[in-house]
Amino acid sequence: METKYNITKIRGSKKEETQDHISVEEPLEMSLKFKRGEKWNVENISITMRTPGNDEDLITGFLYNERIIENINEIEKVEKKGEIVGDYNLQNKIEATINNTNNLDIGKIKRNFVTNSSCGVCGKTSLDSIEVLKTKKIDLSSPKINYNIILKSPESLRNNQSEFSKTGGIHASALIDSQSEVRAVREDVGRHNALDKLIGHTLKNKIIKPENQFIACSGRLNFELVQKALMVNIGLMVGVGAPTSLAIDLAKRFDMTLVGFVKSDSFNIYCNKDRILINN
Amino acid sequence: METKYNITKIRGSKKEETQDHISVEEPLEMSLKFKRGEKWNVENISITMRTPGNDEDLITGFLYNERIIENINEIEKVEKKGEIVGDYNLQNKIEATINNTNNLDIGKIKRNFVTNSSCGVCGKTSLDSIEVLKTKKIDLSSPKINYNIILKSPESLRNNQSEFSKTGGIHASALIDSQSEVRAVREDVGRHNALDKLIGHTLKNKIIKPENQFIACSGRLNFELVQKALMVNIGLMVGVGAPTSLAIDLAKRFDMTLVGFVKSDSFNIYCNKDRILINN
Repeated sequence: METKYNITKIRGSKKEETQDHISVEEPLEMSLKFKRGEKWNVENISITMRTPGNDEDLITGFLYNERIIENINEIEKVEKKGEIVGDYNLQNKIEATINNTNNLDIGKIKRNFVTNSSCGVCGKTSLDSIEVLKTKKIDLSSPKINYNIILKSPESLRNNQSEFSKTGGIHASALIDSQSEVRAVREDVGRHNALDKLIGHTLKNKIIKPENQFIACSGRLNFELVQKALMVNIGLMVGVGAPTSLAIDLAKRFDMTLVGFVKSDSFNIYCNKDRILINN
Repeated sequence: METKYNITKIRGSKKEETQDHISVEEPLEMSLKFKRGEKWNVENISITMRTPGNDEDLITGFLYNERIIENINEIEKVEKKGEIVGDYNLQNKIEATINNTNNLDIGKIKRNFVTNSSCGVCGKTSLDSIEVLKTKKIDLSSPKINYNIILKSPESLRNNQSEFSKTGGIHASALIDSQSEVRAVREDVGRHNALDKLIGHTLKNKIIKPENQFIACSGRLNFELVQKALMVNIGLMVGVGAPTSLAIDLAKRFDMTLVGFVKSDSFNIYCNKDRILINN
């Protein structure tokens, strides 16, 4: 599932207002319905950020791959639940009814998979409800970053990575300032870990100065990454890859500037473009 | 952190035995030490797959970004814990002592972040202990796939994607057979979701025939993806990107063939190369 967003495309020093296709990212709450004795029970088992579509396949594969069921026939039916939400006319809850509870340990499943629900089942319709971000608004007056510094950022990132050039299999996040100086880089096979490491390091050493710095990431930008950068008041986030719909929505909501698809001669601005300075 | 693995490099129809740098992926168990009244408590709060190195930064950033602490000074100290494990001489546990428990809701933290521990804190040293896979061994006699089919797989994947070409921001997983026919494709912003969807769909419709099929993924291959493919007895997994160390270790342990960095004229085989047929 995809949607269209208005973007500003920068090629060299030329601006173009256009539209871009964006992959939709929305939370899905999965629950399990099962009988214990004569009584039907429903338990939430997982919240995951996913692209809507084929949600029945997702819960089926999840239940099987995690051995919550041992056989596909243990699934009696799968039903979409919850209200129709958001601009995308979709439901963000799904329920599987299973007919075999012999080996079902709900406590264990919930411990293992009710993951990272700090955002709740928020989605586009309820970004306001993100508790930890409620009081936040990023200062729109800073940072101001020259477009040339953005174009250089993938190279800056690569030059400061210790491993990427050799393995090609690791994500990196960097804190870069308005003079193009890389203040810190951290790497990890998980992009959320690379950003947690960067923020942990730069907080500890008091290196973060949101007034003239931005964060650059080697991969795509999703909800979770934008949320982490917002926690330290970063006003500009740059990705070598594409952002998701929810990453853009979240950045808009808190006045962050989001930039994606950065190459040596072009990039896309998804919102709050005034932080990017173009000399013409 | 990286390590070296023996690999077989295929260029056109030429084989070369060589070595490749691989990003290390290992679990990290994070715990919190805090005082309640006069008593010290230690609680596990999260298990994450990460690249070892800067683990102190990781737990610091995690605690701050998730607002388990509100200020960096609430961290009294961070200590590496656990035994030295594996080939990499590292510890897979880390503990942060915090001095402010005013807003600490351990129950909530544990519900939110004790994620996906189906593998336990396994790592290279205890892959044997993965409960759900214990009885598994993949049949080494199948599938047999011609190297040309592997070279074509990124193109097959792209041709069957509905969105990638437009957004560039979505992962895909495909089930492809020995005749290069794509049996099914599923997409998602999360690569684990794309694979769960593919497996859910192909199980439900009885499309999976591991004896002459393989799974191709658009991105990098990590522990979690290999684990999911093993659940449905897939003997060959192919990625456009790099595999992690733990993905290779897991594939080796269960006799799966792992292929990475697939381009139109070359790819790398990380283990069990005999499933790939080269006509010379």
